[in-house]
Amino acid sequence: MASPIHRPLQPMTDFAATKTLFHLPEGVIYLDGNSLGPLPLRTPDRVARMLKEEWGEMLIGGWNRAGWMAQPMGLGDRVGGLIGAEPGHVTLGDTLSIKVFQALAAALAKTDRKVILSDSGNFPSDLYIAEGLVGTLNQGHSLRVVDPEDVADAITGEVGVLLLTQVDYRTGRMHDMADLTAMAHAAGAICIWDLAHSAGAIPVDVAGCQADFAVGCTYKYLNGGPGAPAFIYVAPRHAPTARPALSGWLGHDAPFAFEPTYRPGEGIARMRVGTPPVLQMAALDASMDIWDTVDMEALRSASIRLTERFIEGIEASCADLTLASPREAARRGSQVSFRHPQGYAAMQACIAQGVVGDFRAPDIMRFGFTPLFIDENDVEAAIDVIARVMADRLWEDPQYQARGAVT
Amino acid sequence: MASPIHRPLQPMTDFAATKTLFHLPEGVIYLDGNSLGPLPLRTPDRVARMLKEEWGEMLIGGWNRAGWMAQPMGLGDRVGGLIGAEPGHVTLGDTLSIKVFQALAAALAKTDRKVILSDSGNFPSDLYIAEGLVGTLNQGHSLRVVDPEDVADAITGEVGVLLLTQVDYRTGRMHDMADLTAMAHAAGAICIWDLAHSAGAIPVDVAGCQADFAVGCTYKYLNGGPGAPAFIYVAPRHAPTARPALSGWLGHDAPFAFEPTYRPGEGIARMRVGTPPVLQMAALDASMDIWDTVDMEALRSASIRLTERFIEGIEASCADLTLASPREAARRGSQVSFRHPQGYAAMQACIAQGVVGDFRAPDIMRFGFTPLFIDENDVEAAIDVIARVMADRLWEDPQYQARGAVT
Repeated sequence: MASPIHRPLQPMTDFAATKTLFHLPEGVIYLDGNSLGPLPLRTPDRVARMLKEEWGEMLIGGWNRAGWMAQPMGLGDRVGGLIGAEPGHVTLGDTLSIKVFQALAAALAKTDRKVILSDSGNFPSDLYIAEGLVGTLNQGHSLRVVDPEDVADAITGEVGVLLLTQVDYRTGRMHDMADLTAMAHAAGAICIWDLAHSAGAIPVDVAGCQADFAVGCTYKYLNGGPGAPAFIYVAPRHAPTARPALSGWLGHDAPFAFEPTYRPGEGIARMRVGTPPVLQMAALDASMDIWDTVDMEALRSASIRLTERFIEGIEASCADLTLASPREAARRGSQVSFRHPQGYAAMQACIAQGVVGDFRAPDIMRFGFTPLFIDENDVEAAIDVIARVMADRLWEDPQYQARGAVT
Repeated sequence: MASPIHRPLQPMTDFAATKTLFHLPEGVIYLDGNSLGPLPLRTPDRVARMLKEEWGEMLIGGWNRAGWMAQPMGLGDRVGGLIGAEPGHVTLGDTLSIKVFQALAAALAKTDRKVILSDSGNFPSDLYIAEGLVGTLNQGHSLRVVDPEDVADAITGEVGVLLLTQVDYRTGRMHDMADLTAMAHAAGAICIWDLAHSAGAIPVDVAGCQADFAVGCTYKYLNGGPGAPAFIYVAPRHAPTARPALSGWLGHDAPFAFEPTYRPGEGIARMRVGTPPVLQMAALDASMDIWDTVDMEALRSASIRLTERFIEGIEASCADLTLASPREAARRGSQVSFRHPQGYAAMQACIAQGVVGDFRAPDIMRFGFTPLFIDENDVEAAIDVIARVMADRLWEDPQYQARGAVT
């Protein structure tokens, strides 16, 4: 097995100063970096340079001279460094739903079994994509969805592919990736891990866990910006034979030879599809300059300190809020969720008071903790605001009840 | 049938001043806007505002407050105005290869016939995607590829789907979209038109031609920037029943209800897949401000004037170059191609002299004509440069022979 991607020898373990690397609006405590990370201060300059110096001056030559064509693999390795991938086995592009489709189609092509096992805590789009693929294939596959706590027992000999999101987008409940992957392999199944709420949130070791495929997005914890490209990892043992269902030209072995028939590119390169989104890549390049230096173990410790204090503070002051996240830190990602019957209105009231989290139906108030720009003082201030919202029953105010489109 | 998308009452018919709307590097005559359009001067400001005022200040709220979520449909209608689409039947996102996949999968789901007919002038990625889908379906489909001039005769009762690119990326040869669509319909086949080299190049009337599906990209003639999103059109008669093979959450009827099972959105909305690329959308928004005002018939007349003069001038001065494009303007898109046995080196020499076109294997030198920023003076200057390159046999210079990655 290839060695892990090189990370700095002295990675950053202290996040006291990293807040200054981000633009955070006045008066806002942003506990929604798990949905859309904030703007790194360096990003506008990087994007402006891409526009003016690269696109503007190099025109078509930018594909080679500015390295645009190589970015999906180069940036892929940098993201891969955060999830424990071997070098050369991650590529970027498209959206997470597309990457789920690619991984699942490739996994199904490797097994004769017909059952895809997932859980009800998976992000709906992953389930929708699986449903759509089952229908398109029309070859007797089925999607079996169980409760998250029942996944282990449901890994039977019928299961061809286990398709899970490691960290539940609503509750933050975290699956044990190593254990479930080992169980799946023991039962003869292939594992696909969606790391949307893991990459940049917790230490991940796809190679160590022997994950078969992994996918994720870069606009949440990784601060790549709205619509930032998704990533896909294919384990080295599968990469040379994985079947690309979306066989676009940039996954061809020689895209610019314009051959009449498709020949898959080497390894992960075949999971490229079409033209890379160069503006989005430039923004991600800027944010990865920060992430390249982060020690994920230190970040995880900081995240746990913040979430533990948040849970303690909210439970001490808000009797109406019920913890929806696992109480045990080791079983949680980097978010904390509480239930409230009027959760939507209560969250709107919190946002109006400057504490930005979000709401997930039917009753989940979700708060993300991102130590690069959220510190202990923010957590104390957020607890105070939320406690006041709850004590004053601000959710009863009609202005917070009216539902706009939920974000 | 819905009425066509509203276009300005007095669209722009004179392009003498539009060159000033673009950044063009000093000393360059850019005849490659058919591959990657140049940077509109207004784009960097629009993107900077999106970054700072929208992402930076609104954070997650930008999805609604800045209208990010609505952009694929809003911008889709603006692109739709250039291709004769009915309002509400075009959406933007992903890459062209993905959109080809969606259109082809939806078309195949509407017919029991197993043959996909295409031609050898189609862009390879369209053929690769079809090949991949045939393999994934594993239901006895086949891709039949004929020469472009044989397409009409090959539309038999076996053909379920006719998948064509209107304008050949190498030669600029243009299919008669109305005729071939009518022939396909008479034979009981469904038509998918790839408009990559049509949108913003020539007047297109997808509604008038009764095209079933159309797809295309926005980074060529439409100046959306490298990696700009692709578009897909589904005819109103198909939109309510088209089967979305890539059933991602943003194509769901209620994406933010996070329902456990997929329900396709209304009409074209189901062809959305994942999170829109908001930076790319901002850049496209800026370039569409220009395109919203363009009279496509006037643009076409200007393009024909430029290509006619270019052919005349090159043929008069460069005996070694053989016209690869149709001589008849009505059968050409907005590009002119010549063949030369040393086409790669000859094009490198032209580029070194400031005339930027591109090369397509095995021997095609390709020049795009884009009247918004190329005028008669540019064409005369380009003819002079190319004539000198050919007269001086500059392609024999070893510095131009070495192949880098082709763009």
